[in-house]
Amino acid sequence: MQAEIIAVGTEILLGQITNTNSTYIAQGLAELGIDSYYQTVVGDNPQRLSAVIEIAAQRNDLVILTGGLGPTKDDLTKQTLAQYLNVALVESPSAMQKITAWFATNGKTMTANNRLQALYPDGAVPLTNHNGMAVGAFYQSVDSADFLLLPGPPRELTMMFDTEAKPKLAAAYGRQAQIYSRVMRFYGISESELVTKLQPLIDGQTKVTIAPYAKTNEVTLRLSAQAVTERVAKTMIDTVDQQIKACVGTFFYGYGDDNSLVTTVIKQMIAAKLSLTAAESLTAGLFQSTIGSVSGVSAIFPGGFVTYANEAKHQLVNVPQAIIDTDGVVSKTTAQAMAVGAKKQLNTAVGVSFTGVAGPGTLEGQVAGTVWIGLAYRNQPVVAHQYHFAGNRQQIRERSVMAGLDLLRHALNADMDLKK
Amino acid sequence: MQAEIIAVGTEILLGQITNTNSTYIAQGLAELGIDSYYQTVVGDNPQRLSAVIEIAAQRNDLVILTGGLGPTKDDLTKQTLAQYLNVALVESPSAMQKITAWFATNGKTMTANNRLQALYPDGAVPLTNHNGMAVGAFYQSVDSADFLLLPGPPRELTMMFDTEAKPKLAAAYGRQAQIYSRVMRFYGISESELVTKLQPLIDGQTKVTIAPYAKTNEVTLRLSAQAVTERVAKTMIDTVDQQIKACVGTFFYGYGDDNSLVTTVIKQMIAAKLSLTAAESLTAGLFQSTIGSVSGVSAIFPGGFVTYANEAKHQLVNVPQAIIDTDGVVSKTTAQAMAVGAKKQLNTAVGVSFTGVAGPGTLEGQVAGTVWIGLAYRNQPVVAHQYHFAGNRQQIRERSVMAGLDLLRHALNADMDLKK
Repeated sequence: MQAEIIAVGTEILLGQITNTNSTYIAQGLAELGIDSYYQTVVGDNPQRLSAVIEIAAQRNDLVILTGGLGPTKDDLTKQTLAQYLNVALVESPSAMQKITAWFATNGKTMTANNRLQALYPDGAVPLTNHNGMAVGAFYQSVDSADFLLLPGPPRELTMMFDTEAKPKLAAAYGRQAQIYSRVMRFYGISESELVTKLQPLIDGQTKVTIAPYAKTNEVTLRLSAQAVTERVAKTMIDTVDQQIKACVGTFFYGYGDDNSLVTTVIKQMIAAKLSLTAAESLTAGLFQSTIGSVSGVSAIFPGGFVTYANEAKHQLVNVPQAIIDTDGVVSKTTAQAMAVGAKKQLNTAVGVSFTGVAGPGTLEGQVAGTVWIGLAYRNQPVVAHQYHFAGNRQQIRERSVMAGLDLLRHALNADMDLKK
Repeated sequence: MQAEIIAVGTEILLGQITNTNSTYIAQGLAELGIDSYYQTVVGDNPQRLSAVIEIAAQRNDLVILTGGLGPTKDDLTKQTLAQYLNVALVESPSAMQKITAWFATNGKTMTANNRLQALYPDGAVPLTNHNGMAVGAFYQSVDSADFLLLPGPPRELTMMFDTEAKPKLAAAYGRQAQIYSRVMRFYGISESELVTKLQPLIDGQTKVTIAPYAKTNEVTLRLSAQAVTERVAKTMIDTVDQQIKACVGTFFYGYGDDNSLVTTVIKQMIAAKLSLTAAESLTAGLFQSTIGSVSGVSAIFPGGFVTYANEAKHQLVNVPQAIIDTDGVVSKTTAQAMAVGAKKQLNTAVGVSFTGVAGPGTLEGQVAGTVWIGLAYRNQPVVAHQYHFAGNRQQIRERSVMAGLDLLRHALNADMDLKK
């Protein structure tokens, strides 16, 4: 069983976007045990698309096309495929209903080209687009390769591939073996450091694949194993999991592709019924908006403060003017006063603060990336830590938020009351 | 002049790494005015690599291979190419010297396979690797396509492509024409709506390409023209630019790949010396952290409030308890009171507020996506608008922020005082 991924889009050929769709599909094929020996990118041009479809169909059992299902004139993938297969395009009533409903709800006029998004090649199984309007399709041929049609926008592609396509591929082609995989997440260690520390373990593995991925401000490891039953594969992975934790456990914070440091920390806070607020200077609300992304956070988060100007630090969270005058705002004492002040104002169990230099210029003679994070945790003495973050303005702010969450995670883990 | 990029690496086919090398090279080709209609990925397998080299050489003038130049057994790209070209591999003395020196300096034993990194196809021009050991090559054929051999590790690839390969490509092929392009940015209109409105203009164009791209919550158009001089190309684009604005100007907010709605609005606010604050409920600081991303915002942004809980709306920005009790917090009156209250607390020229339902559940019987945005602009009467955003929790919050910025943009554009 062999598959080729064809990404359709002139913007990839021009280098305007990176072809992450093929990466995502390739990972899925690897999990399904389907081999993939080629990937192709072609522009929004029916002749050239037709030519690569022909080459791909000759050398594969399954051809996966992503992109070009939208409503614009550039979008010609399914028309080209239908022509290649010599079948008509037919309309999916449920997709059409969704399109019509969207335009009705949003009070916009539906144009004719939007109808195109509900079409798929006759004889195929239509695939629902849960994050968009363009319908996908899975076409099984008698005398040619099979075809899978997926949308181009990554949110639509990933959702459709996971929920609609993968089960159908598994059903159509079966699995060569049971594959089990697990994602471990780490914060506070770089990909190269992690790999160096784990190198003996990685080299010694023959049955469990350990694949590191550097994500924004964190690293994940995907452990995968194949075995005759999932239970056997899972046991193999459990062993390696324990070995990894013995080596780099202090940086490990959780499992799962959809997990994140903020989700882990906020769920712990909700379970512990600990309320939280913040006073933010350089991050300007990024910490609070990040915790606000976690559903259910309202149980522990009443709100907080953005204290960007010096006066706001004094007015909103009562940082004494004397501290600002003597130590400056990029200081331990200001960070501590902000955390304590915010916690007191909203009467929460925990207060976090961020003050520092986002850049590009210096502030109070301190270079961009110098950040103090304060933590007033329950009845413990307030603390503040200094960081030096690399990167541009936005990266420094994002790294500050991650460091604040990690500080909170360590405080939660060390909190003996929560272990009772 | 037409080129194809072939990335060689099984790890790309398995989805373990994303093929950013092809993106990087594609951008460089676009700059050089070299067309690229195909990209291919193939694994570390000489038969399949040979097959894709043959296909690529038939349909292109130049084939660019990246990856597989290293010292391991998997690295077979130049051996395969040399066989295809029927030439020997020869050693680059300077590359060999560098490899020998590295092992001497680092006190490691040089293994035989490391010598492989100094080899390149006979007849080619070797390309220095400033960030690694594997030498690259540029081979100009008489009767086949030309070939460019580049290393796989991104640090090595980008450096070699920029400093070694690009000058040689420019010298070998020259530029076909001067290319000039311009990006126009739009908010408040979907890609399909924009394309429908501009269809007659797009269809009527023969010399200026109008390419739409849907970005997160906005749409851009890239206008590109080729001409003998940049001035001529620019004039062609100016004309189309004016025609587009005449048609959809109300949604146009600015130019440039690195521009954004927030940058445009905040720069206008700074220029007008109008200070700004916000009270945020469902967005939980996302509006403020977004404006905080713009360098120089401190001139007009003292700080603000995250009023997530009802009590915080009352305590921090003085929303009257009677309004909350009578109208609820997802209401016009609450949005208005939040904007006015925040503006008054920090004595700013403008106050913005966000209150609504981020979801996933309902709030006060209203569905997720129902959002009120308030605006207290200078001495004008406070306003509040209701929106119904689609999407998940995070998308609803992001769309709210964009709508708030757009509200501000329209207020600024309508402000007669600023035009004096």
